[in-house]
This record gives sequence, C-alpha cells and structure tokens, in this order.
Amino acid sequence: MSIVMKPNDAAWMFIEKPEQPCHVASLSVFSPPPGAASDYVRQLVAQFEATRVFAPPFNYVLRRGVRGKLVPTWDELPADQIDLEYHFRHSALPAPGGELELGKLVSRLHSHALDFRRPLWELHLIEGLEHGRFAIYMKLHHSQMDGMAGVALWNRVMSLDADARNCQAPWAVGLKSSGPKNDRQKPSQAEKNPGNPAAAMLPALQAIGDLVKAAKNPEHPLQAMPYGAPRSVLNGRIHGQRRVATQTYTLARIQAVARKAEVSVNDVFLAICGGGLRRYLMEQGKLPLASLTAGLPVSVRPAGDVSVGNAISFMFAKLCTDIADPLARLRGCHESTALAKEHLQRMPKDVMESYTMLAMGPYLAQVALGLAGFGRPSHNLIVSNVPGERRPQYFNGARLEQLYPISALFNGQAVNISVFSCGGNFSLGFVGCRDSLPSIQKLAVYTGAALSDLEAALSTSRE
Amino acid sequence: MSIVMKPNDAAWMFIEKPEQPCHVASLSVFSPPPGAASDYVRQLVAQFEATRVFAPPFNYVLRRGVRGKLVPTWDELPADQIDLEYHFRHSALPAPGGELELGKLVSRLHSHALDFRRPLWELHLIEGLEHGRFAIYMKLHHSQMDGMAGVALWNRVMSLDADARNCQAPWAVGLKSSGPKNDRQKPSQAEKNPGNPAAAMLPALQAIGDLVKAAKNPEHPLQAMPYGAPRSVLNGRIHGQRRVATQTYTLARIQAVARKAEVSVNDVFLAICGGGLRRYLMEQGKLPLASLTAGLPVSVRPAGDVSVGNAISFMFAKLCTDIADPLARLRGCHESTALAKEHLQRMPKDVMESYTMLAMGPYLAQVALGLAGFGRPSHNLIVSNVPGERRPQYFNGARLEQLYPISALFNGQAVNISVFSCGGNFSLGFVGCRDSLPSIQKLAVYTGAALSDLEAALSTSRE
Repeated sequence: MSIVMKPNDAAWMFIEKPEQPCHVASLSVFSPPPGAASDYVRQLVAQFEATRVFAPPFNYVLRRGVRGKLVPTWDELPADQIDLEYHFRHSALPAPGGELELGKLVSRLHSHALDFRRPLWELHLIEGLEHGRFAIYMKLHHSQMDGMAGVALWNRVMSLDADARNCQAPWAVGLKSSGPKNDRQKPSQAEKNPGNPAAAMLPALQAIGDLVKAAKNPEHPLQAMPYGAPRSVLNGRIHGQRRVATQTYTLARIQAVARKAEVSVNDVFLAICGGGLRRYLMEQGKLPLASLTAGLPVSVRPAGDVSVGNAISFMFAKLCTDIADPLARLRGCHESTALAKEHLQRMPKDVMESYTMLAMGPYLAQVALGLAGFGRPSHNLIVSNVPGERRPQYFNGARLEQLYPISALFNGQAVNISVFSCGGNFSLGFVGCRDSLPSIQKLAVYTGAALSDLEAALSTSRE
Repeated sequence: MSIVMKPNDAAWMFIEKPEQPCHVASLSVFSPPPGAASDYVRQLVAQFEATRVFAPPFNYVLRRGVRGKLVPTWDELPADQIDLEYHFRHSALPAPGGELELGKLVSRLHSHALDFRRPLWELHLIEGLEHGRFAIYMKLHHSQMDGMAGVALWNRVMSLDADARNCQAPWAVGLKSSGPKNDRQKPSQAEKNPGNPAAAMLPALQAIGDLVKAAKNPEHPLQAMPYGAPRSVLNGRIHGQRRVATQTYTLARIQAVARKAEVSVNDVFLAICGGGLRRYLMEQGKLPLASLTAGLPVSVRPAGDVSVGNAISFMFAKLCTDIADPLARLRGCHESTALAKEHLQRMPKDVMESYTMLAMGPYLAQVALGLAGFGRPSHNLIVSNVPGERRPQYFNGARLEQLYPISALFNGQAVNISVFSCGGNFSLGFVGCRDSLPSIQKLAVYTGAALSDLEAALSTSRE
C-alpha cells in the first residue's frame, strides 16, 4: 500500500541535506520499578528484540524513483523486510552515567542522519544512567511526526498504571496510518500539480509579499512578523554536527510564576528563553539591539488526532531580549503572543492556508525555492512548547521521570529550544549547531537563571 | 603549512561518497594491568581529555575551495582550533559486554562517515567489556593511513615494557608529516596536471588494457589477473551501513599449519579466507564456478618509514574457492601468490608505476572515471595481511590482547577481510555491506572451520 505525503510532510523531505538532517527525537528518562530485578533492563531489551510487529510510521519506507522526488510517497514494508537489529539499538553510558555523559551520547546520536533506504527511525535504549535509571532516545523523520504526534505516540505507549506490565515497544504501538491513497480528503494544491511543487506554493508566495509589507509597518511595536527579525549569530549557515543540552524544572515552579504574573505557562517559557538568550548573547558581545523573534509552532491538529505526520502552523512572537528587566520581559512576551494570536485569528481562511504552508515551511520558501535574501531572517529561532500528560506515566512499571524534545535545525537556524511538560516536569531540550555556537549547555543553564530572576522579581513585587 | 596530497592518497578523497566512506579503523582490546585501581579507565580518559597536542595526521584538515577538489591539500590546524571533545569519545558497552555487544557498537561506529570540516579521525575509548577489559576503536581516513602505517602508529604508541607509564594518546604521537609543499620529490603526473586528474591517469589506463588482455590468456590456470574474476554477490552496489565481525586465532596455530604444509602464514590466511567464503557462499547457493580472486595489498613502504599516507601496490591471487579439498586449496593459494609475486617482479619499473596507480585505485579507474563495465569485477574482494609487533605490547601497563583491522568497502566490493598479526595473535576483521550480504559473522566463524579442516587434513596426511 502506498501513501502520498501531504505537502506539509513532504516539505521535510525536500529540505533534507547532510548538514540539515530533518529528524526529530525525544529523550525519556526512566526509573525502574521499586524492587525491580537486577536484569530489569536486560528483560526490556529482550522484549524489544522480540517485538517484530511494526505500526505506522515505523513500517513506512520512502518510495524510490523519480516520481518520489516530486511527490514523495511512502510504501509500507512487510515486517520480515524490516531489519529490527538496525533500528533498535541497545547502548550504555560510561561511568558515572550523569547528565554530562548522556548529553554527549545524545549529541552524537542526534548528529547522524537517518538511512533513507529504511524506515526512518531509530530507538536507542540506553542503560547505565546514575541511580539505576535508563533512557530511551527515539528518533524519527520530521515528515512523519511533529511534536504533538510525538507526545500522542508516547501517551499511547505509556500507562497511567504503575502495575501494568503489558506495555509494548513504541514501534508496535505507532500512530494511525496517514491512510491509503484513495482514502484522502480533497487534493491539496501540491497534489493537483504533482509535477510542479512551485506552482502549489504560489498562494504562499503571494502571502509572503503581504507579510513582508506588514513587517515594515507593524501595527504595534511588540507585534512580531516573519522577516522582521534582527540579524544575529543564530542565523548563519549550519553544519552537520549538533550539541544537545537538557534542563528540567518542575511544572509547579513555572505555573507559580505564571499565576503570580497573570500570564500563561507558555509566556513564562518564552520569557525564560528570552532571558537565557539575552545573557548568552551578551556574554559573547552579540546581542542584537532589537528583540529576537521566535517562530512558535501552533498545532492545528484536531483534538484526539493521533495520525502520522505534521499538523502545525506558525506564529511569531518577540522574546524581548532587548528588555533587561525580567518582569517587563515577561509582560512583553505575553503581549507579543497575544498580538500574534489575534493576527492569526483575524486571517481569512484561504490566506490562512497559504500562510500555514509558508510558515510551516519557511524552509520550503527560503531553502528549497531559494527565496532567502530578504535581508533579514524570517525569525531568529524556533521555540516550541508541547503540553503532555500531566499525570505520572509508566512503561511496564518503570516511571517516566523526564521527557525531553530534541528538535531539528536548518540553515539559518542554528539553535532550537523545545519543551515538553509531562508528569509534573517542564523539560527543555536545546539543540545547537556545534560549529556555529559555543557551549549550548550554557544557554540551558541561563534559562534557569532567568527563571530564578523572575521568581525573585515577582516575590519582591508582591511583598 | 600546506601539504599537497600524493596521488595515491588523493585517490581516497576522489572516491569518498556517503555509501562509500573511505575511512579505515583499528580495534584494540586491552586488559588493565594486574591490580589496577578501579578507576583505571577513568584515569585514562582523564589523561586523554587533557592531551591537547596533535601530531600529523591528527592535525590535518582538508583545505577548502575549488583547488582542493582537484588536487586535495591538507592544512595543519593549530591545536586550539581542534575540538578534542569531538574527536575523542568515551563510550561504554551494555551488559554483558561480550563480543556480540562490541561487534554491534563497532558496526555502528564504522558506518558513520568522518566530518570533512575537521581533522579526519575519531578515537573511541570503550569501557564495559567482560573481565574489566576496555577497547579502543580508532578511525582515520584512508588518504592518511594504510594498514602498515596504522601498525607503525600503534608501535609508536605502545610500549614493550609492562611497567612503563609514559605512553601518550595516539594523536599526540602521530606519524611523520607528509612534509611541507616545498619538501617533496619530483611532482607526479597528477601534480603536473592539477586541472586534469584524468590526464594523470593515462599511463594507468594504458596499463589496464595490457592487463585485461593478459587476463584473457593467462599463462597459468592459477594466475589471477585483474578483471579476470568471476561475477559474484560480493560485487554488487554497496550502501552506507556496515556489519563488522572479528575472529582471533593464535599465531602459533597458523604458523603450525604453514610449517607442516611448507607454505607461508599468508598462504594459510588466504586458504582459510577461501574456505570460509566457499562455505558461506555455498550455503546461499551463490558460489561461483570459478575461484574468487582476491586483491592483496602489497606494501611498497621502505623499511622503517612511519610517514602519513599510503604506500601500497596490489597483487592478485586466487582463493581457490572452487577446490573442495582443504589441502589442495592451500596449495593452490600458495601457487597463485607465487605466480603473482613473480609477475610483479618481472614488471618494468615504469609499467609498475602505472600498475600501482591503477591497482591502488581500481576505484579511481572503476568508480571515479566510470570505467566499470569490463563485464567482470577487477577482483572479488580485498584480503589484506599486515604483520605487526610479535612481542607483547602495553599501553600504560594495560596489555594489548587483540588488534583488529577494520577496513573500508567500495562499490563493487561488499566485503573485506583484513588481518593483523600482533602479540602472538592472528586477528581477523571482517567488514560487510549490511544491505548486500547476510550475517558477516557467519563468514567469520567459517574461517575457523576452514582452519580446523586444514589442521585435521594435515595431521591425517602426516600420520
């Protein structure tokens, strides 16, 4: 059975390059159940090795040939043609198995492109973390999964019941199929014009013009528009190697700040990213005068949709990196996202479609169609917040302690900050281009300083 | 300082491709010194992390730009521009840390191409092997090092003294520089014609004609000539993923067989490769009627030369996979190599130079210049034997137990068998294309069966 990719999924195929591999990953850290046998992890490995059932997209393989280049298509591989030993990998951390060792291993794993001759995933079960913990680094191609789909998959794999022992390997659970060719809704522009992807993009290109015009005369100083972002060191050419860093805070801390400041959890996330970036760039003497602009993926996935693929649009917000005061920065982020939401809601449906097309693939526009050169980057970085299951989750009794998103980078986008809020934690994954940016770990640490600054400022302001 | 690559080194640059990464590696397994502290490996890691001195070729980086494409040139990087954390990697095996786990990890590490923006090496110190052992997987680009240079490097790094504790990290020891630009001998054809690598190959192309002609009318049935090899499953297109297997025998076993049969150690090596391949291919119903032909790298490195780069020619021998009787096969291999040596020695010096050029890069001829299509492969596989230091060697007291070569594959060459004889062991490294060949591990095991068959036959024949 063949599945034609939707244009928003196919976009990730068009822009795949050695220095720009378009895979995304999650990193989950687990504690074994209390009183677990000493071979708990080994048994898990044995269970995984024996699981030779593959649900979408774990059985999807890119169809070869010329047509596949213009309108990429998935074929479903029969289980006996899937080399599980290749996709499922058992690894270990060297002693002492701390955050440093885990970060180094994940940086390496995330730097390697997927093998396009096979289903586009790898799952690494990593033993040897401190305190008997283990981790799962799971990598898929972005054409198959956005952040929401990733969390949806994890929710299908995990159990809320600490005593449940019937959890299956992620590839046996999977997502709902993208559906066979004849099962689709009305064909999109790209599907109507399979020979000419550029033609399909025309409405989006028109929309660029409007947006760039608007960017020159924003209605409000805090309104962020694509192509209105300042030039920065975050927007150079990238290369193939990645550095990954992680940082986790209790969701309660973020919520307490949000409550006190009367803003959303997402506003607090943007403000600590802004604060972290401000300090990181000031230290290098490279903070732009104008605020950095973030692209914020917005899910357009219907509630309960757990299908393969991408369903995201974008909005743009200022991170207020030009504002020194932590509280003023938080309020600025809050206002900027409010303006962005309003702008998104005001947009007529047909423009919205083009806009999504464009915003989903600023890469398609900038990279694939060579439209870079508006003088300014579309946005300085992507900052992505995906809410997850707030209750504790378990896999065959092992408690999910943290779930970090590890996203992709693109030319002109040398850093990405994403967050999953799951099981009472607010877990940030930072990805940076190893050759373009110094220690991404510092940026991770500085978001913590920015959070503490906010807490201090709020406690003073309310006293 | 810039160093222009010699044509034989540059050849490996021209043919580098994602599915054909031209790196070679060694895998060494060490036992810690008796009574070593529990943090012996950790201390070694700390020593390595602190070693920020880089000898050739560990400080060589490919010069960028157009000229670099035609006549590739190395620049020497200052130490402060080398990202040691990238090149030196501390890894661990999952439990139980056996041959299986080590083979899987090395298969993955060997499948990843080097990063051409950096010095072309990685060194992985792997802890967690059974019985407290550790391993070093060291990978360099073939343009910098052939098997002999690899063993020469190891001999400079290691000590014969079990009590010595002043051994340095391999990158601090290195090899002798290829020399600055002005220091070279008379320019080669490739250097005289920097704009036209094809012109530089003309003598080699002429030599192909002569050799192909000779292949059609060999003087002797056991004389192997390039392009006289049978078609086989070993000679299809390859892909990017590798499987690595290892097998070690005591050198004494190999020597005993050689002595009894009055042949060389290398003849025994060829015969057990031939026996292993015969069983492996018969099992798949894919054994060619005619014997497989092996390309045997021949060192043309002057004694005591420990410089960067390649100094190898090739000769061709039949592995006698068409002969069922183990002793007859061994004698066939012996005769075939004797004929090949004689042919090599008879060759006039100027033809020999072209021949080396051609034989060194059947890839240059076949792959880079698109000359494939003579109907038959140049040879079926490369089988390489590099003698090493026979006395026990130590690194800061840790005894080198095994040293395996892990070689490169090329389009049309889906398997490689190489051997290092070091410290009383005869250690074979097998590399296969994961998508072209089933379990390369079986082939490794079957060489053991072939060795036992030889031992049994010899003991019977002498009784």
